[in-house]
Amino acid sequence: MKLLKERILSEGKVINNSILKVDSFLNHQIDPVLMNEIGKEIYTRFKDYNITKILTIEASGIACAVFAGYHFKLPVVFAKKQSPSTISKDNMLTGSVFSFTKNKEYEIVVAKDFIKANDRVLIIDDFLAHGNALRGLYEIVKSVNAEVVAAAIVIEKSFQLGREKLMDLNIEIQSLSKIISLDNNTITIN
Amino acid sequence: MKLLKERILSEGKVINNSILKVDSFLNHQIDPVLMNEIGKEIYTRFKDYNITKILTIEASGIACAVFAGYHFKLPVVFAKKQSPSTISKDNMLTGSVFSFTKNKEYEIVVAKDFIKANDRVLIIDDFLAHGNALRGLYEIVKSVNAEVVAAAIVIEKSFQLGREKLMDLNIEIQSLSKIISLDNNTITIN
Repeated sequence: MKLLKERILSEGKVINNSILKVDSFLNHQIDPVLMNEIGKEIYTRFKDYNITKILTIEASGIACAVFAGYHFKLPVVFAKKQSPSTISKDNMLTGSVFSFTKNKEYEIVVAKDFIKANDRVLIIDDFLAHGNALRGLYEIVKSVNAEVVAAAIVIEKSFQLGREKLMDLNIEIQSLSKIISLDNNTITIN
Repeated sequence: MKLLKERILSEGKVINNSILKVDSFLNHQIDPVLMNEIGKEIYTRFKDYNITKILTIEASGIACAVFAGYHFKLPVVFAKKQSPSTISKDNMLTGSVFSFTKNKEYEIVVAKDFIKANDRVLIIDDFLAHGNALRGLYEIVKSVNAEVVAAAIVIEKSFQLGREKLMDLNIEIQSLSKIISLDNNTITIN
C-alpha cells in the first residue's frame, strides 16, 4: 500500500534495529484519513471471504480495525489486556500473549457474548513482529470453535519472523507493508 | 442523538445503580456505523470552533474519536494509561485520573510532540461519570498552555455530577446522550 509505505518512510523513527516508532500517525497520534484508506484496502482484499466479525486488540489496533469494520459494515471486537471487573471469569474467552517489549506473558480477554462458534473472524492488528499477539487472538477464536479466516496486518516486521513462527496455525496473513530491516538506522521496506 | 439513545435503551445493561454496560456497541464490541454517525454529529456541533487537534483516552474513546477526526480531517491523539517504554519522561505530558471502578489514582500520558501551545483541542470521551478522566486530559492540555476548546461526550451519566465537579475548568461540555438515572434496574435517558 503505497500511501502507507510513504508515510512509514517519512515519519517512522528507528529506535534500534528491532523497534520502529510510528507514533505520529498510528500508535499514539492517529491520522484518521490514512486509517480510512487502510480500512478500505483491507475491505478490498477480504470482501469475498464471508467475514462475520472483526477482532483486534487494544489499543493501537482499534483505529484501523474500526475503519475496516465500517467498510465491511461489520462489528469490531477488541480484546482487552486486563480483565474488566464487569465481565465474570465464566463469561470470558482468554488467550495468552508474550510481550517482548515488557518481557512477560499476559492474558487477553474477550467476552463470550461477542464471538460465537459460527463466526468467521478476520483478525486485524497494527503490527506483526514475533506473532505473539496474533497467536493470542487466534487462541480466543479457536476456544469457541469459530474460524479465523485470515489476518490483516498494517506493518509486518518480516525480519522478526512472526509469519514463520505462526505457520502451525495455517491461516492466511496479509500485510499492507513489510519492513525487511531496521539495520543501520534505516527503514528498508517492501 | 436519537440513534444513540435508542441503542442505549435497547442494548445497555444496568449492572447496578451507577454502572451501565454498553459492551455490545461501544466499549468492547464496536459498531463502526454508529461510531461514524457519532463522529459526524460531533463534527456538526464543533465544526466552527477552529479545532486543531482531537484528544481522547485509550481504549474505548478511540473509536468515536477517530471517526470524529475523520470528519474534521484532523489528527487524533489518545492518552495512554501506562508510560510507554519508547517515550522518555522528559518528553511526556502527564495528567492524573482517579478511577472509581478500580479505586485508585493513575497517571495518563501524552508525548510532548503531539500537543503544542498553539493547539485548540477538542476532548472526546465515551463516558462522563465523575469527570476524572476529563480532568486528567484537561491537565495534559493545560500543561503546555494549549487550549481546551470543548469536550464532546458520548454518554453522560448526569446523576454522577461530573459536569458540576468540572465547573472550575470553565469548558463547554456537550453530551450526545444523558443518563439521568439507573435506579430500579431502569435506564432513564434524556
